[in-house]
Amino acid sequence: MAFRFELQCTDTSTALGTPARRGVFHTPHGPVQTPGFMPVGTQGTVKGLTIDQVAGTGAHMILGNTYHLGLRPGHEVVKTLGGLHAMSGWEGPILTDSGGFQVFSLDGINKISEHSVIFRSHIDGALIDLTPEYSMQIQESLGSDVAMVLDHVVALPAEKDAVQDAMERSIRWAKRCLEYAGRADQAKFAIVQGGLDVELRVQCAREMAAMNFEGYAVGGLSVGEPPPEMYRITQATTPELPQQKPRYLMGVGRPIDLLESVARGIDLFDCVMPTRNGRNGYAFTDAGPIKIRNAKHKTDTSPLDPNCDCLACTRHSRGYLRHLFIVGEMLGPSLLSLHNLTYYQKVMQGAREAIEQGCFAQYMATKKQQWGIE
Amino acid sequence: MAFRFELQCTDTSTALGTPARRGVFHTPHGPVQTPGFMPVGTQGTVKGLTIDQVAGTGAHMILGNTYHLGLRPGHEVVKTLGGLHAMSGWEGPILTDSGGFQVFSLDGINKISEHSVIFRSHIDGALIDLTPEYSMQIQESLGSDVAMVLDHVVALPAEKDAVQDAMERSIRWAKRCLEYAGRADQAKFAIVQGGLDVELRVQCAREMAAMNFEGYAVGGLSVGEPPPEMYRITQATTPELPQQKPRYLMGVGRPIDLLESVARGIDLFDCVMPTRNGRNGYAFTDAGPIKIRNAKHKTDTSPLDPNCDCLACTRHSRGYLRHLFIVGEMLGPSLLSLHNLTYYQKVMQGAREAIEQGCFAQYMATKKQQWGIE
Repeated sequence: MAFRFELQCTDTSTALGTPARRGVFHTPHGPVQTPGFMPVGTQGTVKGLTIDQVAGTGAHMILGNTYHLGLRPGHEVVKTLGGLHAMSGWEGPILTDSGGFQVFSLDGINKISEHSVIFRSHIDGALIDLTPEYSMQIQESLGSDVAMVLDHVVALPAEKDAVQDAMERSIRWAKRCLEYAGRADQAKFAIVQGGLDVELRVQCAREMAAMNFEGYAVGGLSVGEPPPEMYRITQATTPELPQQKPRYLMGVGRPIDLLESVARGIDLFDCVMPTRNGRNGYAFTDAGPIKIRNAKHKTDTSPLDPNCDCLACTRHSRGYLRHLFIVGEMLGPSLLSLHNLTYYQKVMQGAREAIEQGCFAQYMATKKQQWGIE
Repeated sequence: MAFRFELQCTDTSTALGTPARRGVFHTPHGPVQTPGFMPVGTQGTVKGLTIDQVAGTGAHMILGNTYHLGLRPGHEVVKTLGGLHAMSGWEGPILTDSGGFQVFSLDGINKISEHSVIFRSHIDGALIDLTPEYSMQIQESLGSDVAMVLDHVVALPAEKDAVQDAMERSIRWAKRCLEYAGRADQAKFAIVQGGLDVELRVQCAREMAAMNFEGYAVGGLSVGEPPPEMYRITQATTPELPQQKPRYLMGVGRPIDLLESVARGIDLFDCVMPTRNGRNGYAFTDAGPIKIRNAKHKTDTSPLDPNCDCLACTRHSRGYLRHLFIVGEMLGPSLLSLHNLTYYQKVMQGAREAIEQGCFAQYMATKKQQWGIE
């Protein structure tokens, strides 16, 4: 079998109903240690970093965006260039999203029907008819290890009817994706929808679980709702998902969100936060966040994070990093992105080790204290 | 002695009066193989590259800009951060220019006198009084291995009187720089001025040569004059410079300009061209220049330059590199900068090997043929 999720051990120390899980997700391009964080490579590159630098942060799997890559350079071009692995030079596993989240976030949506969502390209205004089948076709051209099903995402807050309608359509579309998909070397992950309604989430999770996907995602969260709401929905959803399949919380989040969700049984994450915040001069550290543009760092010869072994922290001072941001040199965004991704991987590595030792609750408590979170 | 130029061998195969030279310039931060090319790190960073990537291109020495670093973060801040080496993380030799070229290129020049040049900062409009002594003071704070004297640069074409006046002032300022300079671990290089006038150039070179500088630069060229004019002036100047000191042609240039100038006895170069052109999608190769945005590269799986072992050429295709530029990802400019700097270093390494073998004329002829230059 091309894909296998090996659940190595669980940790109930957080006592949230679902245990934290330590596992390995085996793919044709190698294993992904879970809990794990996937850097986002929207357009076939993790912004500002070479593929070797991304690997050097400790990342096992990266994410590509069907919406963006489908528009530019186009899925047929990616296929001609050998697929997303060969094109980007990334030799490890890749997960691609379905385009659903991006398309339903667009101003240019033209028409949503049972058949498809029709939208205008933000590049050239062309009308594009995205069916579940077409999303899978694009992802097959990209050749990712994991393809996500096309889902119908509604902006929150929304009426229960609208949320239920989108959730039920997401189930029907998931089934169409599964029926269309033809690559044995590409896993298909379902996406559970249902907004902030536990009843709808549970129903969706159960119906999705009844279909034979290689993994299950929780989607439509981290869209502006308070974090406790996200935790509540995650906690209600994970018990309904198969134990022996990986679980992926899409688009999450801050380091604390990752740990709170691991405590609720999530295995995989992706988020632009480490790279986007890094480009804006915001660094994550064990001593809490650092805004490197702050004047107090001007003559500071100390490293960004004395506990970090990334290039930014081992070779450069806060004073130099601040200088790079103040004068607008691209090395600044690159180095802080590198640091933040390294930090995220270290947090996840710590989570994996803690679960192995059965002390995840203690690990999370320590991290919260370091980050100044009550 | 902290500095020593070891002239290893010469090559008269180009028969241009002055031989091509193979040497080693020894500095407190290590040796510089000559002929050599210095990447430009204007603001304490070679744009878009980490310091390890710069070292990986084969560069021995980099350049920093007194004008830019003096304004931001300010020379006292650099000094507090341990000097330019510690601040930037570059452990090899560094040369700093004097600020003369930048200041005299500014629109905001306020007053030029025998004492100084007064100009307005392009950052905040502050009036700055740059004397030869202050330029040296800034460079001593930066802690570069080589400091350049402050020179008076005139825009060409100009009346002979104006060129002569600036040339003579440059000599007097050079003397003031030499008298002020106090760091034994910092070499001082004179700059020969005199526009496109051979008589003035020769006079300037002789007067500078009579002072005890550790090296000599040819300045005020590569400012828009036709390349043959630059070659003519270089050829007239180098015979007047001491044999046992390194010679540096400032701000030059295209690969062919480097070879034509090596043939006229130049040892060192700096130029923004490999990085600036790289950022704009223009790559130097043995098969001539490549504009990577060109549509013909869209589905091209071949490397940018099959003879190059840089990351851009060994891990990525032309199609991918084009994609990065089309979608505006910063990895594109980084990778092409990396390639171009690697290419420049390879051209210079080839020049060194050719001089060692006494066949520099043949090397240059081969390169011109590859580049399609008559």
